[in-house]
Amino acid sequence: MASRFKKIRLSTKGFADVIDITAEVRGFIDEVDESDGLLTVMVPGATGAVTTIEYESGLVNDFKKLLEELIPQDGYYEHNERWGDGNGFSHLRASLLGPSLTIPFKSNRPLLGTWQQVVFCDFDNRRREREIVLSVVF
Amino acid sequence: MASRFKKIRLSTKGFADVIDITAEVRGFIDEVDESDGLLTVMVPGATGAVTTIEYESGLVNDFKKLLEELIPQDGYYEHNERWGDGNGFSHLRASLLGPSLTIPFKSNRPLLGTWQQVVFCDFDNRRREREIVLSVVF
Amino acid sequence: MASRFKKIRLSTKGFADVIDITAEVRGFIDEVDESDGLLTVMVPGATGAVTTIEYESGLVNDFKKLLEELIPQDGYYEHNERWGDGNGFSHLRASLLGPSLTIPFKSNRPLLGTWQQVVFCDFDNRRREREIVLSVVF
Repeated sequence: MASRFKKIRLSTKGFADVIDITAEVRGFIDEVDESDGLLTVMVPGATGAVTTIEYESGLVNDFKKLLEELIPQDGYYEHNERWGDGNGFSHLRASLLGPSLTIPFKSNRPLLGTWQQVVFCDFDNRRREREIVLSVVF
Repeated sequence: MASRFKKIRLSTKGFADVIDITAEVRGFIDEVDESDGLLTVMVPGATGAVTTIEYESGLVNDFKKLLEELIPQDGYYEHNERWGDGNGFSHLRASLLGPSLTIPFKSNRPLLGTWQQVVFCDFDNRRREREIVLSVVF
Repeated sequence: MASRFKKIRLSTKGFADVIDITAEVRGFIDEVDESDGLLTVMVPGATGAVTTIEYESGLVNDFKKLLEELIPQDGYYEHNERWGDGNGFSHLRASLLGPSLTIPFKSNRPLLGTWQQVVFCDFDNRRREREIVLSVVF
């Protein structure tokens, strides 16, 4: 058995920036030396998350609106009182969705649906340079 | 190290159909040739999700009601405007819960609690024939 | 390839008790004999969950408040009618967040952000003695 890692760098806009990273996931799985195994996508950071979605702009807008309804940006958060960075909403959205996603791959392809894309969500309240970790075991 | 896969087929009713797949998970883990490792359950598709729940009908109803409150079927969704298939709510529920779940197994048994079942949730707005992927690495 | 397991025991207060288990995660990864792989944290039980958060008391309070807003303790739940244990809200919170989290590790360190802690959330409505499973494959 072995594991392989890759870091991908993303320039994000924050405020629920939803970025399709499916091509990076497919590319990484295609280049590993074993054909079958598990891939984990991990966000090292407490204001980002990973999930899957049908990546079309209408639905992405619906997703942003849902998060604003569940966890409004201008709500009252103790975190903001203490740290003054105003990103309490970012943290809560990230903790609710979760920072990692695990996907099996077979014959060097992730077992995703046709209309299912892997997305990184940057919930922070400013532009960020992010590093996302792709890790496989096989 | 090695990995093994199995696809299970399910006929679902949609509209937050919550289906107990614990027996299939236990059966698959029981038949693999190594006793210890990690299992991932994956939904290839953007309107389904996997989680665990105490599978009794009262709680399953509560879970459906919660999802209807958080993400109502008849809400306004841009996705519906564009695609006309009326399943914007299905997609959002799936993205919020997530498409995969990873469970360690030991001595050929998943490390679940006594009252904890693995469930596939079909959030789509019609009957579907689904394939769910079970994958283990060890 | 191989897998290793460790159980950690926690005395919890319930009612969304959010417990930082990052030190236990780091300690376990540090002691395994391979440097790189995947770690899964698993809650065997249907009223607990795992996620990551910046573990400072303001944000932890915000997180508890969010869960109370989304899934109130004193809401009406069929589960409570049937079982009389009053923890319908606990189950729903656990199913929404999910019982497991997978984190890659490299050079015997989990790939977490500096301000990102791994937390076990006990949503039950009473004190509990809990066993959480840490599992690695490499």
